[in-house]
Amino acid sequence: MASQLKRLGLNKSFGGFVTKWEHFSAVLGLTAKFSIFMPAGASNDARVHCLYFLSGLTCNEDNFIQKAGATREANAQHLAIVCPDTSPRGAGVPTEDDNWDFGTGAGFYVDATTDGWKKNYKMYSYVTKELPALIEENFPVTNRKSVFGHSMGGHGALSLYLKNPGLYQSASAFSPICNPTNCPWGKKALSGYLGNDEADWKEWDSSQLVSGFTGQRNEILIDQGAEDGFLKDGQLLPEAFAEACQASKHPLTLRMQEGYDHSYFFISSFVDDHIKHHSSFLNAQ
Amino acid sequence: MASQLKRLGLNKSFGGFVTKWEHFSAVLGLTAKFSIFMPAGASNDARVHCLYFLSGLTCNEDNFIQKAGATREANAQHLAIVCPDTSPRGAGVPTEDDNWDFGTGAGFYVDATTDGWKKNYKMYSYVTKELPALIEENFPVTNRKSVFGHSMGGHGALSLYLKNPGLYQSASAFSPICNPTNCPWGKKALSGYLGNDEADWKEWDSSQLVSGFTGQRNEILIDQGAEDGFLKDGQLLPEAFAEACQASKHPLTLRMQEGYDHSYFFISSFVDDHIKHHSSFLNAQ
Repeated sequence: MASQLKRLGLNKSFGGFVTKWEHFSAVLGLTAKFSIFMPAGASNDARVHCLYFLSGLTCNEDNFIQKAGATREANAQHLAIVCPDTSPRGAGVPTEDDNWDFGTGAGFYVDATTDGWKKNYKMYSYVTKELPALIEENFPVTNRKSVFGHSMGGHGALSLYLKNPGLYQSASAFSPICNPTNCPWGKKALSGYLGNDEADWKEWDSSQLVSGFTGQRNEILIDQGAEDGFLKDGQLLPEAFAEACQASKHPLTLRMQEGYDHSYFFISSFVDDHIKHHSSFLNAQ
Repeated sequence: MASQLKRLGLNKSFGGFVTKWEHFSAVLGLTAKFSIFMPAGASNDARVHCLYFLSGLTCNEDNFIQKAGATREANAQHLAIVCPDTSPRGAGVPTEDDNWDFGTGAGFYVDATTDGWKKNYKMYSYVTKELPALIEENFPVTNRKSVFGHSMGGHGALSLYLKNPGLYQSASAFSPICNPTNCPWGKKALSGYLGNDEADWKEWDSSQLVSGFTGQRNEILIDQGAEDGFLKDGQLLPEAFAEACQASKHPLTLRMQEGYDHSYFFISSFVDDHIKHHSSFLNAQ
């Protein structure tokens, strides 16, 4: 399968290496890109566990790895970081480039079922199945993994963790969209990708998924900037997720970070804590 | 003078704040932008010393502050960081946008003397005089400062330090253009901004300036990626600067960093060392 991967970039970073790749995704039906950080010393005889970072609206495979300053701590914790894109690219859906919060750059980590979108917009299956299989076959990683993300990607991290008991050891998020069935971004995306029957939306809403979670209830870490304009606009709704976790006795640390906004300046300020959080689960055995 | 500054951005980062500004520059004759990081706790009663970071070709006031991961250590060392742009913008010189390595985004930190360029392309006077005066009047900083930079901005850092004994406490650089009178980038820029008399170029070449430096000879720190393609192309010539420092007994630590390239992945891997280097001089009293 290695021949399917085409390398687009290679940069040494904190002793490890960031590489960027493209490959043909059978799930998406299109060429897809991802970035991956491998810490120093990783080899087939010394495989490392893997963090998946899911980015937010308008982002791609570059933003986190270039701006979050995560590779220093990832190298220290001997963890790989995989950064997929946020949507298929070039699917040819007539309206996919009309909105910054729907279509290109806004796949929402769901499998679409609506006409036009269902052929390619399957970021859920891509991120949970095809991409990990590709990574585990071609890089010196174990199949032990955790997931984190930002904003739309925070929704992705929480929902993928809750929908797949045992697949990820832990989940965390920066300013996640916690309750997409009740916010403008989420309603637009879920109706567009899944149709107008709101019953179909529930299985993609972390605040509704947490009660049905059957896996080991490892603590979820969420950081939220208190000065985040999208929090004030009612797009993120962390209080809904906190209530759901409390009702389901799912351990959650939700930190409101005074003065911080929605940007990568916020993410980079706390990313070390998230990497250490995941390391405490991934490297526990 | 505060009314002259228009704030374009505000982001909390590692407890301090990154802000972005524009102002009318009398020296450049145009509106100019800069970013500044102020560490937590800085105030008019607790002023901090100031680092100036000069960026490389094609960059602007955003690249370093967004990608280098410098604010964590700057906050820890109680230092401000000022990031100016790399050239005037919109001067209207007919050919200024024709090349990525000359004109817009490529001011080379000189004061141009040639027709067409001499009216606006005065980044040397802007960075050494107008900008510090503006910063020191409007932000809680002292007039104690150091300078560092990358590539073209590494040339800027070294040459500004050497041309102005006592203005900066210390200088450091990532992959600097060390000997611009002898490399393609430098020859193109110096002939374009200063004319074809090579005698006029010497006063902008760090490898020629170091012998005449009359200030306190504080150690200069240079990191250079051994896999930097521009090093192999003969654009950077650190060996020329090392020889000049040795001949002049100017203390220099030149570190060849195995496996690293010219990118911000390289800069971020070693930026903490540079901030600590400058702190050892700036915060020594």
